[in-house]
Amino acid sequence: MSRIVVKFGGTSVADPNRIENAADKVQAEVRRGNKVIVVVSAMAGVTNQLVDYCQQIDPGCDPHEYDAVVASGEQITTGLMALALQKRGLSSRSFMGWQVPMICNDQHGRARIDEIPPENLENCLDNDVVAVVAGFQGVSRSGRISTLGRGGSDTTAVALAAAVKAHRCDIYTDVDGVYTTDPRMVPQASKLEKVSYEEMLEMAALGAKVLHPRSVELAMAWNVPLQVLSSFDPKIGSELPGTLIVAEEDIMEKQIVNGVTYTRNESKITLLKVPDMPGIAASIFAPLGESGINVDVIVQNVSPDGKTTDMTFTVPKGDAARTKSVLSSLDQLQGVEIRIDNDIAKISIVGIGMSSHTGVAKTMFTTLAENKINIQAITTSEIKISVLIDEKFTELAVRALHSAFDLDQKNVG
Amino acid sequence: MSRIVVKFGGTSVADPNRIENAADKVQAEVRRGNKVIVVVSAMAGVTNQLVDYCQQIDPGCDPHEYDAVVASGEQITTGLMALALQKRGLSSRSFMGWQVPMICNDQHGRARIDEIPPENLENCLDNDVVAVVAGFQGVSRSGRISTLGRGGSDTTAVALAAAVKAHRCDIYTDVDGVYTTDPRMVPQASKLEKVSYEEMLEMAALGAKVLHPRSVELAMAWNVPLQVLSSFDPKIGSELPGTLIVAEEDIMEKQIVNGVTYTRNESKITLLKVPDMPGIAASIFAPLGESGINVDVIVQNVSPDGKTTDMTFTVPKGDAARTKSVLSSLDQLQGVEIRIDNDIAKISIVGIGMSSHTGVAKTMFTTLAENKINIQAITTSEIKISVLIDEKFTELAVRALHSAFDLDQKNVG
Repeated sequence: MSRIVVKFGGTSVADPNRIENAADKVQAEVRRGNKVIVVVSAMAGVTNQLVDYCQQIDPGCDPHEYDAVVASGEQITTGLMALALQKRGLSSRSFMGWQVPMICNDQHGRARIDEIPPENLENCLDNDVVAVVAGFQGVSRSGRISTLGRGGSDTTAVALAAAVKAHRCDIYTDVDGVYTTDPRMVPQASKLEKVSYEEMLEMAALGAKVLHPRSVELAMAWNVPLQVLSSFDPKIGSELPGTLIVAEEDIMEKQIVNGVTYTRNESKITLLKVPDMPGIAASIFAPLGESGINVDVIVQNVSPDGKTTDMTFTVPKGDAARTKSVLSSLDQLQGVEIRIDNDIAKISIVGIGMSSHTGVAKTMFTTLAENKINIQAITTSEIKISVLIDEKFTELAVRALHSAFDLDQKNVG
Repeated sequence: MSRIVVKFGGTSVADPNRIENAADKVQAEVRRGNKVIVVVSAMAGVTNQLVDYCQQIDPGCDPHEYDAVVASGEQITTGLMALALQKRGLSSRSFMGWQVPMICNDQHGRARIDEIPPENLENCLDNDVVAVVAGFQGVSRSGRISTLGRGGSDTTAVALAAAVKAHRCDIYTDVDGVYTTDPRMVPQASKLEKVSYEEMLEMAALGAKVLHPRSVELAMAWNVPLQVLSSFDPKIGSELPGTLIVAEEDIMEKQIVNGVTYTRNESKITLLKVPDMPGIAASIFAPLGESGINVDVIVQNVSPDGKTTDMTFTVPKGDAARTKSVLSSLDQLQGVEIRIDNDIAKISIVGIGMSSHTGVAKTMFTTLAENKINIQAITTSEIKISVLIDEKFTELAVRALHSAFDLDQKNVG
C-alpha cells in the first residue's frame, strides 16, 4: 500500500466531464490499494480570465487581492473533484490552501511554501478519505490567501508528497510523458521511461513544457519520485507508465544524451567595443538584474587589443527593448554600439551521461557544421551543451542532433 | 460620521467596468465622511454556472462541496472590488467568510449565521480601511466553507450592519427603490420613500423581487435601517434617496395601502367532499410539509351537511403535481376528488395603516367586482389582504386596485 499524490492540470479538469474522467484515474489508484491525495489546477483558461479581470481594473494591482481573485479558480475544481470522487463511492473532501494549511511566506503572487502541518492530511489518509487539495494556493501567516506563481500546482503536489512522505507524485497532464525532443517537430521523438531530476530541470528550463522547473527542484530536494502521465490515455496509469523522474543514482544505465531541446523566445544582445576593464561585466548585468531582466547565455570574446571587447548575451524576447534602454542609460557604455537580434534559437542537448563521456561536444558541433549551421555562441554545464543559431535553422538543427545522438524511434532512458 | 454597510448585487458587479462604477459609489460615501463596509455578490450568472457544474457531476451532491464551489463566485468580486477601491486611493482589503469570520451553523447550502466576532471589521473601521466582505458565504465551526442560500448576500450585509452597529445598510441593485407595484405592469407606479419592515416583508414574500424576506427579517430583528438604491442611476446615493425600510414607529404618516403585489407562481389545489372530521386538516398538511411543499392561502368552506367539506389551498406551481401524488396516497382522502388549477394569480394589497382603517377590504372587493373579476379565495393579515383570481385578470386587477387606493403617479410613503 503506497501513498500517492496525484495532480491534474488545467486541461485535465477543463469541464465536469473531464473532472469525471480524472476521478476515474483516482478511483483506479485507490482500487490498486493505494492511499491517494489529489491536487487540481483551475479549469483551463479560468486563471487567465481572472488575471485579466484584475488587470482591467489595475495593471499594477495589489498582489494580496490578485491572489484572492486568482485562487478562486482552483477552489471550483477542488470542490467538483471531491464531488466526482464521492459519486464513485469514495470518501472525499476538499481542502483550500488555508484549510490544509499550506503556510506560505508573504511574497504574494509568487509565494513560497514555508510549512505544511500534516495533521489534517494524515487524518484523511488514516481514515481512507481522499483529500482533494487546491493547487497553486496557500495562506500567509497573517491569514491572507496567497498564490504560488507559475508552476504553482505542480509545486503544491510535490510539496504535499514531501509533507506526507508519499511514495510517488503523479502529474497528469495533456502529454503522456517526457520526450527526447518536441514530437511535433520530430516525429521520431521517443518517450523517455526514466529521466533524472537534473536532466528534467535542464529540459524544463530549456523549453520542454511538461513540468515547471520549480516543482522538479522541490522534488529533487525532497527526493520525491515524479511521474508524468496523460489524463487522456485510457491505458495509462497501471500497465503503461508515463515518464518517471528520479534521482540520478536510481538510473542504472545512464544515457549520454537524453534530449534535444530548443527555445525561440530569446533575443541576442551584442555590445560592440565595450571598454575592457575590471568590473565592466558587473556594471552591465547588475542594472539588468535590478530591472528584473533575466540574462541567459553570456559570451565575452577575448579582447584583441586589450582595450575593448565584444560581449554577447540573451534575454527574453519581450525584454529586449527594455534591455537596450537600460544599457543605453549607463555611463560606462556611452559610445558602445548595442545590437539586438531577435531571429535566434537556442538548441541544447541534455544528458547525465555526458559528463563521463568525451566527444559529445564534437559530435554536436560536427553535426551542425555538416548541416551548414553557424554557431553564434556556446555555453555548457555538466549535463548540457547549448548553442545559439539562426532561428530559421531550428528544425534542421533539432532533427539532425536528435538523429546524431541515436534518439530516433526507440524507447530510451 | 456614520457607519454604513453597502451591498452590491450581481448585476452591479457583473464585470470589471460595473465594479468600477460601484466603487465610485463607495468612494462618494467615504468622501461624505462615512466609514464604509462593502458586501458584494458574485457576478451575475456566475453562481448559476457554478451550481450547474455541481449538478452535472451529481444532482444530489454533498452540500459541503457544493458550498466550496459556489462560494468562489463571491471571492472573485470581493478581491476585484478591493482593487477598484485601492485604485481610487482608498485603503481596502477583502475578507472571505472564513476571514471575517462569519461563523455559521452546519446547515450547508442554507447556513444560518451564528456569530460575527467584530474585531477584524472594527479594526478596519478604526484605521479607515474599507473592508470588502464576500456576500453569501461563511465558515462552519469545523472550518468548512458554507453558503447562506437564497438572499444570502443581502443577509450578509444586514448581519454585518448589526455586528458593527451600522447606522444604515444600503442595498444597491438594478432598481432604484421599492414601488407601489410592478412599474412594468403599471406605468403610474410610484417609488416609496419609506416603508416599514412589516410591509416590505409582505411585499417581498408576495412577489416584489427587490429584497429577500430573510434579510428584511434580520434587519427588523436588529433594527437596521435598510435603503434600496440603484447602482446605475448616477444621481442616486446622496441627493436622491432610494427607498428607506425602517421600523413602523419611525414612519410618521402611515399609508393605509402602500403597495399592490401579485404572483402567478402558485397553483390552486381544491379537494372536493373531504370527510369533515377533527384532525383532517393536519392529516392533509402534515404530509405536504414533510414533503417540503410550502402551502399558502388555505380556505375551508363551511360544511353544508356536516359530513363533508371542500378545501382550497395554493402551492408553488412546480410542486402541484407532487402535491397531487402525495395527497392521492393518503388513506383519509381515498375517494376525494383533487383538482389542480394552474391559471390563478394572487393579488395582494399591503399597508401598515390598514389595521386602523375600516373599509379597506370593502374597497378592494368592490373594485374587483366593478371590473367583473371573480374572487376565488381570500386571506388576510394585520397589514395585507390577498385574493386568488383567474390569472388572465392579473393586470386588470393590479391596475384597478393601484388606482382605487390612490397610489397612481405620486410619491407616497
